[in-house]
Amino acid sequence: MKKETVIKAKRQFIADCTKNLIETAGIDSINMEDIAKASEYTKRTLYVYFKSKDEILLWVFTDDLIQRWNYQKIRIQQKIKGIDKLKEWAYAYLDYCSENSITIPLQNYMDYHFVNLEKVDNEVFSRFEEINTALAEGLRLIFNESLKNKELRFKVNIDLTISQFLYSYRAILQRAFSSQYSFTTIDKKEYVDYFIHSFILGHFKKK
Amino acid sequence: MKKETVIKAKRQFIADCTKNLIETAGIDSINMEDIAKASEYTKRTLYVYFKSKDEILLWVFTDDLIQRWNYQKIRIQQKIKGIDKLKEWAYAYLDYCSENSITIPLQNYMDYHFVNLEKVDNEVFSRFEEINTALAEGLRLIFNESLKNKELRFKVNIDLTISQFLYSYRAILQRAFSSQYSFTTIDKKEYVDYFIHSFILGHFKKK
Repeated sequence: MKKETVIKAKRQFIADCTKNLIETAGIDSINMEDIAKASEYTKRTLYVYFKSKDEILLWVFTDDLIQRWNYQKIRIQQKIKGIDKLKEWAYAYLDYCSENSITIPLQNYMDYHFVNLEKVDNEVFSRFEEINTALAEGLRLIFNESLKNKELRFKVNIDLTISQFLYSYRAILQRAFSSQYSFTTIDKKEYVDYFIHSFILGHFKKK
Repeated sequence: MKKETVIKAKRQFIADCTKNLIETAGIDSINMEDIAKASEYTKRTLYVYFKSKDEILLWVFTDDLIQRWNYQKIRIQQKIKGIDKLKEWAYAYLDYCSENSITIPLQNYMDYHFVNLEKVDNEVFSRFEEINTALAEGLRLIFNESLKNKELRFKVNIDLTISQFLYSYRAILQRAFSSQYSFTTIDKKEYVDYFIHSFILGHFKKK
């Protein structure tokens, strides 16, 4: 194997060990010591492959985004109309979160802490930026198609719509999967259905 | 003064010192040592008035919710129709966040960590529960009025609507006030306007 390939494989291995660690121990308590133990490397070796814990976490987060987007893409390509693609996008995201227990906690962590960019190599950040852009572009395609087909109720600002759909839907998913104190208890599927229903009412013409 | 009154005043004093500390140092790094220093009490004395840091933070958070709701109430009572009350509710919340720099970080912190309820006295939790219920009731009143006046587009589930309006609007505010990495930069007011506009399109009949 080429040296580069070996390095990439080792980085991926360390990231995968970290992912497992997050699944079992939760994301908040993890440190480099734990990651070293889990991957059976010394902390010193770990630092050969990653600059910091933040860099590893961003790598794991990026992996999860890539995997999620691949999962969503397969589902939405089976749909024709923009409105149906958007619904499928949302339900695929919901299903993905149900199947991958670290997705919501990881997203919560990133929403709250993100990472210190000084502790992250450009290359690792670019990898994150790339999938982040791809995810936004995927939604842009759906909304642009809906706009073209006159499915939308008003001339929406696509950038704002994508951003607000993402942020509010994410909050809805976080709430749906949370066990935190609230004034009311909820059913995941019903909760998400209701959000999608009213988002679509707000943005799409009635059939 | 009655002993109870003195205790309450001292607790409020400690909470206010903590609030100032959050304003200057941020919420993440604060510990009991810092709060003791800021309030010029010993850590031991601090523990006479509060069971834990979590208890103090919940107190400060409750204060902020109470103050915010009072601010919103004055504004919405000047409006007649449900739809105008809801808009005023949302804009008052936005203005309150602009005027109180700890509101968004405190809410973010609570969304992420909440508090360990074992470290919080029932009495302090009840105080939080009370304002939380009042806030939900305030929104319930608005939506019930809108329902009665046939302002709404469909027979909404009031509990779900309140919950989803709260969670998604909060995410929108957090995004509006955040300086975090994203694929697009935004203008606070425009961002919030757009959300309120499409939420209202989704839930209220066109005039």
